[in-house]
Parts: sequence; structure tokens; C-alpha cells
Amino acid sequence: MTDKVHFDRIAIIGAGLIGSSVARAVMRAGAAGTLVVSDRDEAVLSEAEKLGFAHEFTVNAREAAQDADLVVIAVPVGAMASVGVTIAPVLKAGAIVTDVGSVKEGVFKALEPLLPGNVHLIPGHPVAGTEQSGPSAGFASLFDGRWCIITPPQGVDEGALEKLTKLWEAMGSKVEIMTAQHHDLVLAITSHVPHLIAYNIVGTASDLEEVTRSEVIKYSAGGFRDFTRIAASDPTMWRDVFLNNKDAVLEMLGRFSEDLTALQRAIRWGDGDALFDLFTRTRDIRRRIIDAGQDEEAADFGRHHEE
Amino acid sequence: MTDKVHFDRIAIIGAGLIGSSVARAVMRAGAAGTLVVSDRDEAVLSEAEKLGFAHEFTVNAREAAQDADLVVIAVPVGAMASVGVTIAPVLKAGAIVTDVGSVKEGVFKALEPLLPGNVHLIPGHPVAGTEQSGPSAGFASLFDGRWCIITPPQGVDEGALEKLTKLWEAMGSKVEIMTAQHHDLVLAITSHVPHLIAYNIVGTASDLEEVTRSEVIKYSAGGFRDFTRIAASDPTMWRDVFLNNKDAVLEMLGRFSEDLTALQRAIRWGDGDALFDLFTRTRDIRRRIIDAGQDEEAADFGRHHEE
Ligand SMILES: NC(=O)c1ccc[n+]([C@@H]2O[C@H](COP(=O)([O-])OP(=O)(O)OC[C@H]3O[C@@H](n4cnc5c(N)ncnc54)[C@H](OP(=O)(O)O)[C@@H]3O)[C@@H](O)[C@H]2O)c1
Ligand SMILES: NC(=O)c1ccc[n+]([C@@H]2O[C@H](COP(=O)([O-])OP(=O)(O)OC[C@H]3O[C@@H](n4cnc5c(N)ncnc54)[C@H](OP(=O)(O)O)[C@@H]3O)[C@@H](O)[C@H]2O)c1
Repeated sequence: MTDKVHFDRIAIIGAGLIGSSVARAVMRAGAAGTLVVSDRDEAVLSEAEKLGFAHEFTVNAREAAQDADLVVIAVPVGAMASVGVTIAPVLKAGAIVTDVGSVKEGVFKALEPLLPGNVHLIPGHPVAGTEQSGPSAGFASLFDGRWCIITPPQGVDEGALEKLTKLWEAMGSKVEIMTAQHHDLVLAITSHVPHLIAYNIVGTASDLEEVTRSEVIKYSAGGFRDFTRIAASDPTMWRDVFLNNKDAVLEMLGRFSEDLTALQRAIRWGDGDALFDLFTRTRDIRRRIIDAGQDEEAADFGRHHEE
Repeated sequence: MTDKVHFDRIAIIGAGLIGSSVARAVMRAGAAGTLVVSDRDEAVLSEAEKLGFAHEFTVNAREAAQDADLVVIAVPVGAMASVGVTIAPVLKAGAIVTDVGSVKEGVFKALEPLLPGNVHLIPGHPVAGTEQSGPSAGFASLFDGRWCIITPPQGVDEGALEKLTKLWEAMGSKVEIMTAQHHDLVLAITSHVPHLIAYNIVGTASDLEEVTRSEVIKYSAGGFRDFTRIAASDPTMWRDVFLNNKDAVLEMLGRFSEDLTALQRAIRWGDGDALFDLFTRTRDIRRRIIDAGQDEEAADFGRHHEE
């Protein structure tokens, strides 16, 4: 076991965008003695095998988890429990079980009762992704410079938490620790509600009678197209997010709707100052996101333009 | 006058993102015998002069419009009338006056009574842009492959309309003709409401107490950052858009809010099928926008990722 190796055997369950990116980042870091990737779908697994981002591949999640020092569950939030049931009987004493799900309290509550008492369940969520899915959509640098939020339960084993933290750092992430509840509130506003309103406006635009779909498509460069990218994200993943983070999403959605009502009133009454004031305040946040290295300066998302 | 020259003298009033891009595209096409650009701000004008995207530069809009065969007004929608007042006295008989404003009915109503009866007022709107402003943000290829909507009044001079259409085509655009009213409805859903909800969510996120601003910034890669780009667009331009396209924006915003209420209810009642159904329908529009050449396939807006 060299210096770089963090775990003798790491198992990743689910070879999608995130699972395959974790696999590539683990390999890039040389962080596993043996890395095994499992996917329930034969076709996806053989695609993964061709891409070659692990040492071993198996359709059998139980076989993958056997003897693993770390198991990373990378499936939709609503499928975590069924994976938990499958792997629980073979988990090694002292193994760490983590996940990458976009909701944290629900995942912990689903997995915790299923796993033996002698493993360390420490949920996590890398705040990085794209709108695409599957093993070929992943890449090793997905987590570089992005935050990974780890939400350890009360009384967590500090050694296990440190090992997991160090692994995410080796994969390029910055790590933050918080409670699952707080994670779910933060992500409701920075990710879940933004996705919801993107899905919603694309739905609204598709259903109009006065404006045809082909007009919506032709003139989408005026702003709409940027919402369609987000609204092209995986339906299963996002259904599970909303079903499992209901309270925080409804809370943040309520705030959003209140603010939108005020803005609607400002438009109705021709209150240009109120509009100008909001539109000025919102610029500052953009600047701070760029300064924090969480986005690029390039106009129009760096879409290709030639001079 | 060579074959490529469409107008002997073109004047552009306003050297911002769009005005300077029109200038560059006119020069690239060799479409003007003489191109003169005017900006009221000395500093902006001398920046424009350094960038060199026209034959002549002047702070005096009236001087620019004098003897022009085509005047392109490229200022915020609320400032069109004051430019109209300035240039009206010197407009040549038979000249074409157009604009690039994001709202069309209001602009026509503001300009039409101000201009002499012997000029052709034919408003237009290139559906292309970025979130940036000013002369250095412009580029010649901004309109390539994008649509320009021209909204001629009833009884328009067909020859003048054709000359303007050909010019936009020479600048790389595809041209569509429609009424000003229909334009304003189409743009309300494809551009104005998307901007409004982006501004709104960024405002909501800035005002929370349970989630700090620095958390919003750190975890913005989960979706939020894409809204901040749009919400960094010019406040004056967007205030004017909402003040001048009130009815269509309120109408489309009403539809958006109704649909959002239905989605909220689906989350509250745990109706996963309704969510999954919407999230699946919205993917199709994305595909069609890419097929129509109005966006790129690259994941994550082609943000830089290394393998
Ligand atoms: N996409 C993002 O931007 C992003 C970002 C951060 C975190 N996440 C989280 O990462 C997790 C995975 O998302 P992803 O983007 O990687 O999705 P993905 O590309 O669609 O991959 C999903 C993976 O889960 C497997 N799976 C689905 N249902 C399953 C079930 N019932 N039992 C066993 N395996 C199942 C899939 O297997 P098949 O091969 O059979 O389809 C596939 O391997 C989710 O929890 C999501 O919330 C996503
Ligand atoms: N941005 C987009 O994505 C986009 C897309 C399509 C159409 N449009 C439309 O294009 C027009 C120009 O927008 P832009 O993006 O080019 O904005 P911009 O970069 O901010 O430039 C605005 C220009 O208008 C001038 N201006 C502002 N107020 C004026 C006034 N009261 N009198 C005379 N000149 C004035 C500015 O002069 P200074 O140099 O003194 O500031 C500047 O030259 C707007 O009508 C907008 O709706 C914009």
C-alpha cells in the first residue's frame, strides 16, 4: 500500500455520471488498492468496462461490496434503500458506507436502519454535475475545485470521517462538513428550486397556444435556452430529489413565489425604481461567484463566438 | 458603390453591446459605403474609436443621422424616444430608421409620432446577445445563425423592408417578419419571463436568513450559478423591457405561476408520476433547440473540463 492509497478496496455502486466520475477521480489519484465498479445493467457495465475506469467490474452489487473498505453508493436518491438491502449482509466490520445523493437527511434515514451497527454510514454530496447521464458522461476532473458536502451523523467515528474527507480532497474537491438538515436547506435554494423553476418554465412554454413550439425553439437564444439545459436533467434523479426534500423545497419555493408576486406588482404599477434596484443587487452575487472560482467570466457561458 | 454595399451611409446610435456588434457585422460584410457610430458618452466613444469598428465616430447623434440612408438606434427601449427627438429634424427623405430594442410595440408607438412622414420606420430585434454591455463586449459574429425579427407597420414600403432584410442577412442573421404585438408575446415567454425569474431567484437567495450568502456562493454549481449569469444583465435595459412589455409579461408570468402552483401541489402530495412526466416532456424541447442550431450540445454550457 503506497502513500497515495487511501483504501485497500473501494466499491462504487452505480456507473452513471457521478459514479463513473468518482471512479475516474479515484483512479487518477491512485487512491484505491483495488477499485471495483458495479452496475445492475449488463449493457451499461460493458460500456463502463470498455471505458476502463476501474480495476474490476461486476453486475453484482453484493459481490462488489464484499470485503470493501469503502462503499460509495451512486444511484438516484429513491434507489439508495434497495442498494442498502442488497449490500448489508456482506459489509465488512469497520467499513465506511457513503453516497453521493443530492438529498441528505432522507438518504440517511433510509439507509441507517438497514446497515449493520459495525459499519460507518457517512453520507456525502459532491456539488458538481452536468445535465448528462451514464458512464460516458463522466470525467475525472468533475470535482476539481468544487465543494463536497459531508453530513456525518452525531457521534460519527472521527477516524472514518477523516479518511473520507481525505479521499474527496485527493479527488480534487474542497470539503465542508454540515448537518444533513442544513445541507438540504442550502441545496433547496442553490440547486433544487432552480431546477424546479427551469422545468416549470419549459413546461409553460410548451403548452402555450398563442406562441407555437417552433417559435419557442427559434427564439430561444433570448434566454430561454439556458433553462432548457437544466430542464434536460435526468427525470428519475430529479423526481427523487423533490420527493425526498419536500419540506425544504416547499419552504424555499414559498419565498420565491412571494418575491415573484412583489415583482409582478412592481411591473403592474410601472415601478421602475423597484425593478432597477433588484436588477442591480443581483449583479453583485454573480461577481462573487466568479471570484470564488465557482464559475467562469466568459460571456454567454463561453458559447463559441468568432471575432 | 460595389455589389456588397447595401447603403451609402449607415448611422448607428449607441455603441454598446448590440450597437457595436451591428457595426462590426456591417464592416465584416462591407455593407456600408460609410459607417458612422455615435455614442453620447465621450469616454465610450473614444473606446469605440480605439476598437475601430466604423469609419467615423461622433458624440453628436444628429450629426451621425444627417445624410444617413439607414439609422439603427441601439439604446435601451426607454431611451428610444429621446434619440428620436434628437435625430428627427435632420433625417433625409426616404431614409430608413430601425432599432434593435427587445420590445417592439412600445418602441414603434414612441418613435412613430416623432419622425417625419417621409422616412420609413421599420423596427427590428436581433434575438442574440450576452449578459455583458459596452463597446468591447460586442463581436462581429453575434448574429450568425441567429434570428432577427423585423416588425414592419401596416402599409410598409416593400422596397425599404427588403433592403433592411438583406442587410440583416448580410450580417449573418436569419430574418423573420411578424407583427409587433406577436413579437412581444413570443419574447415575453422566450426571454423576458426567463430573465425575470432569474433575477427573482437570485434576489430570493440573497435575502435568506437560514442560508448565508457565502453558502449560496459556495454551492452555486448545483444550478444556481446559471441563473446568476442571466441576472447579471444590464439593469437599465431590463427595467425598460418590463416597463414597456407589461401586458405580455404579466400574461406569461400568470401562466408560469399557475403551472408552478400545480408543481408545488405535486411535491406536497408526493405525486412522483406528475413530476416524472413533466421532467420527461421538457427534455424534448432541449433536443429540438440543439437540432435547430440555437444552442450547443456541450454539457454544462461547455464550461472547461479536463479529462
Ligand atoms: N447529475 C448531477 O448533476 C448530480 C450531482 C451531484 C449528485 N448527484 C446524485 O448522484 C446520484 C447519481 O446520479 P447520476 O447523475 O450519476 O445519475 P445517472 O448518470 O443516471 O446514473 C444513475 C445510476 O444509478 C443506477 N440506478 C438507478 N436506479 C437504480 C436502482 N433502482 N437500483 C440500482 N441502481 C440503480 C443506474 O443504473 P443503470 O445503469 O441501470 O441505469 C446508474 O448506474 C443521484 O443520487 C444524484 O442525486 C447527481
Ligand atoms: N443585451 C442583449 O442581449 C440584447 C439583445 C438584443 C437586443 N437588445 C437591445 O439592444 C439595445 C441596446 O442594448 P445593449 O445590450 O447594446 O446595451 P449597452 O451595451 O448597455 O449599450 C446601451 C447603449 O445605449 C446608450 N444609451 C443609454 N441611454 C441612453 C440615452 N438616454 N440616450 C442616448 N443613448 C443612451 C448607451 O450610451 P452610454 O455609452 O452613454 O452608456 C450605450 O451606447 C436595447 O434596446 C436592448 O433591449 C439587447
